[in-house]
Amino acid sequence: MSAATHDHDREEGLAFQPKFDAAGLVTCVATDAATGDVLMVAHMNDAALRKTIATGEGWYFSRSRNALWRKGESSGQTQRVVEIRMDCDQDAVWIKVEQIGAACHTGRRSCFYRAVKDEGGNVSLSFVDAEQLFDPAQVYRK
Amino acid sequence: MSAATHDHDREEGLAFQPKFDAAGLVTCVATDAATGDVLMVAHMNDAALRKTIATGEGWYFSRSRNALWRKGESSGQTQRVVEIRMDCDQDAVWIKVEQIGAACHTGRRSCFYRAVKDEGGNVSLSFVDAEQLFDPAQVYRK
Repeated sequence: MSAATHDHDREEGLAFQPKFDAAGLVTCVATDAATGDVLMVAHMNDAALRKTIATGEGWYFSRSRNALWRKGESSGQTQRVVEIRMDCDQDAVWIKVEQIGAACHTGRRSCFYRAVKDEGGNVSLSFVDAEQLFDPAQVYRK
Repeated sequence: MSAATHDHDREEGLAFQPKFDAAGLVTCVATDAATGDVLMVAHMNDAALRKTIATGEGWYFSRSRNALWRKGESSGQTQRVVEIRMDCDQDAVWIKVEQIGAACHTGRRSCFYRAVKDEGGNVSLSFVDAEQLFDPAQVYRK
């Protein structure tokens, strides 16, 4: 089968055939099922993707810890998955979730708590929706 | 400066300091500013990110073509950027856009036109919002 045919199957077919990168990962975007806000961008390996599908909870693969990770296992801030979608070439996953509390390890609802502003070519950030729902020093202490 | 201090600055500061990966890229999620739907997940290098900020249009870096790419330059399906946000560790970008027509090269509004379904452990896809707004064979022909 040619590469083009294979791509066509993956893009137009209904077979679930995630395309993992060289590290065995796909990119996952989690959005708030209620508001549409992007909560986080993270990675899933095959096991994380399968567990997310099978359990209806958000599972990821931590590149820094090199470990499978159930979202909220330390913090209690779990994700109930409402819908899972694959993108055209099946190397990205979009999950719509009901997020308990904060998705971000900094204690914010979303990891995207800063907007980019450009003042005459001078680019900086400003806080947006940056309220901390928990204190990371308390939640993640050993 | 320790790695921890540097991470803290990047996460809690207001300096724009995108964290590019080994290939010089950050992940970008584009959502529909009106509906919150995820339209696409793609990559930006420094030039694409700077051009997106400076012009208010979506620019990306194509890994397959190894080239900077203005969204819609072939198809006319451009993106006007409404807001740009950086995530906690500044290796992912969320842009809210007004998408002209279809974001996906397959002609669909969004790249995420298939949902994952699990029937007793048998995982497959089903089309959702998969109407084609243009014919790729016509739009991308040489």
